[in-house]
Amino acid sequence: MPELRKDPVIGRWVIIATERAKRPKDFKVEKEELPEGPCPFCEGNEAQTPPEVFAVRKSQSKSNGPGWDVRVVSSIAPLLQGKGKADLGRRGKGMYDLMNSIGAHEVIIETPEHIANIADLEEEQIARIIDCYIERYSQLEKDPRFKYVLMFKNYGRPAGGGALKHARSQLIATPVNPKRAKEELVGARKYFEYKERCVFCDIIKQELEQKERVIIDIDGIIAISPFASRFPFEVWILPKEHSCDFFAMKPEHRRDLAGVIKRIMQKLKVALDDPPYNYILHTAPFRRAKAGYWKTIDLDYHWHIEVMPRLTRVAGFEWGTGFYLNPTSPEETTKILRETKIDSR
Amino acid sequence: MPELRKDPVIGRWVIIATERAKRPKDFKVEKEELPEGPCPFCEGNEAQTPPEVFAVRKSQSKSNGPGWDVRVVSSIAPLLQGKGKADLGRRGKGMYDLMNSIGAHEVIIETPEHIANIADLEEEQIARIIDCYIERYSQLEKDPRFKYVLMFKNYGRPAGGGALKHARSQLIATPVNPKRAKEELVGARKYFEYKERCVFCDIIKQELEQKERVIIDIDGIIAISPFASRFPFEVWILPKEHSCDFFAMKPEHRRDLAGVIKRIMQKLKVALDDPPYNYILHTAPFRRAKAGYWKTIDLDYHWHIEVMPRLTRVAGFEWGTGFYLNPTSPEETTKILRETKIDSR
Repeated sequence: MPELRKDPVIGRWVIIATERAKRPKDFKVEKEELPEGPCPFCEGNEAQTPPEVFAVRKSQSKSNGPGWDVRVVSSIAPLLQGKGKADLGRRGKGMYDLMNSIGAHEVIIETPEHIANIADLEEEQIARIIDCYIERYSQLEKDPRFKYVLMFKNYGRPAGGGALKHARSQLIATPVNPKRAKEELVGARKYFEYKERCVFCDIIKQELEQKERVIIDIDGIIAISPFASRFPFEVWILPKEHSCDFFAMKPEHRRDLAGVIKRIMQKLKVALDDPPYNYILHTAPFRRAKAGYWKTIDLDYHWHIEVMPRLTRVAGFEWGTGFYLNPTSPEETTKILRETKIDSR
Repeated sequence: MPELRKDPVIGRWVIIATERAKRPKDFKVEKEELPEGPCPFCEGNEAQTPPEVFAVRKSQSKSNGPGWDVRVVSSIAPLLQGKGKADLGRRGKGMYDLMNSIGAHEVIIETPEHIANIADLEEEQIARIIDCYIERYSQLEKDPRFKYVLMFKNYGRPAGGGALKHARSQLIATPVNPKRAKEELVGARKYFEYKERCVFCDIIKQELEQKERVIIDIDGIIAISPFASRFPFEVWILPKEHSCDFFAMKPEHRRDLAGVIKRIMQKLKVALDDPPYNYILHTAPFRRAKAGYWKTIDLDYHWHIEVMPRLTRVAGFEWGTGFYLNPTSPEETTKILRETKIDSR
């Protein structure tokens, strides 16, 4: 009989349909041949993007020219913008509330070479990308209008990744704590208030004891198939040591994290034939916010990365209920991903 | 400048990107030629479905044979099942919570003819479908294991509608109040506690005064483009008179509702070239639940139908934040749908 499982952080119920279990070959991923024109994200084409806001560069190379390893530019179609001193303009309109779309929207170009999938980058390069995330966060934190930074990656068209086959992630700074982030922060706090322990630390402890959902466990970082996975082959990557803030990560853990990201992405690529996916960094709001409502956040929240291959369609049922139907159990996912052989460079 | 707008019920922020406003022709909807084989939902093929649980039938016609107007069968691949007396089996596993996937999953076959879109059915037929919803609800309510019934429709493959081109909706009875439903119930109650008014009644009042987002206003039913629409051409259909419970609808309002559903669906079909869509009925949990936690629900909640054409992809940003980006303002949507000419049979 299928099981209904509850996510211990936000209380979302998921149907794990073990009876019609799907194996990797059962998922038909839309493949689309994309036209390969000149790529604005390749080294040498810097003039084709908006000016860079930051880059990891070789010494003596010049801004907006070649000679970079990772390059951050504003989005050409920004969802939110924070030019000059424009204020938030919070206001009402009858019973409705609205504000200006103040924020930042940047693209992190992850490699100067025309490589599509982060799975195919070297570990050192992934570590540089992480450094770049941390650098941008520390800059954006200075703008008092922003409350949260969301880092995410859309890979492949069904995941919203657009037509360009060049590895990149995106960053959005928002003037409010996004609903989805808040749900998790509130859920983790409720658990903390009741148990006086971090819910994510408890998850890690139970997973390390039970072992049936641990995909990778190296040094400071663990990758698991969450107990109440919404999607087939959903993976969470977490630091084993408690930390609410991705951007406060110790330098020695950045390399561990890069190694785990690389291995997970390679395993997904091999097991699922290069699937589209999204990943999202879940971290605490900006540090200064912690004084007020989020004052216990150092203790109760725990950063992590959620990787979601896009193998199934989300339809009316999921939209209407917030229930998810997952045709592959996380235990099965774990087994398959553990057994998936990859180059270990 | 684009606006950030807040949904007054659940507090979700939406970016309305007025600057890159999209008109109907800007949305490329995936069209797929589907193979037309024998259809198990057509009259005469009753033996190809699981046995019917209910049907609106012509007198003297026999169960599981021809002679029906609307027919309800169990899903051939049920997400939840409630055979016999199997209990919920709520239990823990270390820190995790789980239960058996008890429930019901039924398909409402909306016409004996091979017609794909509810837009193409007669108003009287849509009224029969509504009667059928109400009939099934009143039966399922008797099972003490169920808390909520979700009615929804997935039309077209990008909306999860499968390969069969035969109009149908689905019903799922769940043993817990789904997260998404609860969010709305809680949001509406918070508003009620503060204002001592129903948030949906206030929305209707403001919309009727401002007029810029009212698409249809006939008799007891109104159709609006919500102020904080998540999706281009999102439409909400609501009763003007306060009522938390769809299934308690007065018979005279059923025909009004059928007329509005017909017109909205026709308008969407014409304006957007037969787009895929989901619609979801949002209503109160089963009546008996109201004694406890939901005791003020008769006053604070208001049933409605949310129609969401699937014209854009939902990607990492939406998943990670619960923020949505909508490239067409609801004021623009309203204008376009108001001006869209349809047959008015």
